[in-house]
Amino acid sequence: MHFISEQRLDDGVLEREFTLGEIPGTLWTPGSAASSGAAPAPLVLMAHNNGLPKAQPRLVARARHCAAYGYAVASIDAPGCGDRPRSAVDEQARADIRRATQAGEPVDEIFESFIGPLVEKAVPEWRTTLDALLALPEIGGPVGYSGWTAVGIRLAVAEPRIAAAGFFAGGYVPRAQREEARQVTIPLLFLLQWDDEGNPRQRALDLFDAFGTKEKTLHANMGGHTGTPWFEVDDGNRFFGRHLK
Amino acid sequence: MHFISEQRLDDGVLEREFTLGEIPGTLWTPGSAASSGAAPAPLVLMAHNNGLPKAQPRLVARARHCAAYGYAVASIDAPGCGDRPRSAVDEQARADIRRATQAGEPVDEIFESFIGPLVEKAVPEWRTTLDALLALPEIGGPVGYSGWTAVGIRLAVAEPRIAAAGFFAGGYVPRAQREEARQVTIPLLFLLQWDDEGNPRQRALDLFDAFGTKEKTLHANMGGHTGTPWFEVDDGNRFFGRHLK
Repeated sequence: MHFISEQRLDDGVLEREFTLGEIPGTLWTPGSAASSGAAPAPLVLMAHNNGLPKAQPRLVARARHCAAYGYAVASIDAPGCGDRPRSAVDEQARADIRRATQAGEPVDEIFESFIGPLVEKAVPEWRTTLDALLALPEIGGPVGYSGWTAVGIRLAVAEPRIAAAGFFAGGYVPRAQREEARQVTIPLLFLLQWDDEGNPRQRALDLFDAFGTKEKTLHANMGGHTGTPWFEVDDGNRFFGRHLK
Repeated sequence: MHFISEQRLDDGVLEREFTLGEIPGTLWTPGSAASSGAAPAPLVLMAHNNGLPKAQPRLVARARHCAAYGYAVASIDAPGCGDRPRSAVDEQARADIRRATQAGEPVDEIFESFIGPLVEKAVPEWRTTLDALLALPEIGGPVGYSGWTAVGIRLAVAEPRIAAAGFFAGGYVPRAQREEARQVTIPLLFLLQWDDEGNPRQRALDLFDAFGTKEKTLHANMGGHTGTPWFEVDDGNRFFGRHLK
């Protein structure tokens, strides 16, 4: 893991860009982590739905706030995500999904053939990143996960170090992850937008119902995909506060 | 309004029983309200679903916690509720609802003929109580409401001083209140239990959908009617913190 840049933000959070082999990532650590003798901060892995860039302003704002609350927060661009190289096939699939969503046409098949492999390729890199992050002295366990539902399901099932997860949206999730949802047994906070234009409400509610965990909470707010109210970021921090100890 | 008893709790909250004409009530005020020059505390009216007693331990625990957070909290036993006299017809209706619920039979008709009038009779007494409470120097506006969904809908529509409300359950709500749900325009926190044995899930979700307000949030947790996790009490306090200023 090589740190290639750093900046100290107004609230004391240290924001560092890193590379880990081919993986580009960002790590945010709370100001308190800099003081000598400070306990290692619990870690939250934060992924944007469907491979949006880790530099996307909404994710960055969420990550900075979460770090200011006291967590180490990390995000990466997995293969085909963010600024990583995209194949012509991927580009076409993304365009097809956008067009079909806007036209109100079914996107299941395109979604399945494109997002399914994206998730499969993302999860090993998230695990490699987790290994490297937990080797840093300022970061400890347990580990939380926040964001992209499909990657989160796969990680929660495959990775015993993930102790709690906050998932967002979840109307469209590849079949493989819908099927393994019942194997997820860690505490969950499932957040959705009631009128999410890209995520059918009933499907998201069905997914919430399907998770195997007994300790799951649903939060829903009005409005479209990007309309989540800011207080949900605080609710997410408090959720991790109950489980990452 | 006559205070008939008072006790100071460990966390400084003052718990006072009062009567207002025929209405028996309890008022909890934060310890800070006792200090001279303290600003009047915002008020939360707290009602138990379907007329359960204001002295019921779960409501009392919730009220005390909310008062310790900084709110004045009040509850009353409305006509036919709690320890107020019940007619033989009421007693029979309560027994019928219990029996039908346990047997998994439809309760709509019994519910409608019994709970409907209970709500109609309760709301004027809650408003009378509100007048008296707001006349106390230690209590100020704005006013929140927490608990019994049907009474809360009626109050939110009829009473402009109610600025925000937290509703619980809401699977069975009298027709009149289901119909006026779309007239509710204040911020709402709607809390339900995913497997509430007495409140069909889809009906509760439909009611959440029907509210006219743009600023509504749904929280759902696993388990039956009385299984709400304690952190939801904190979430409710923070919800009021955003709206009762």
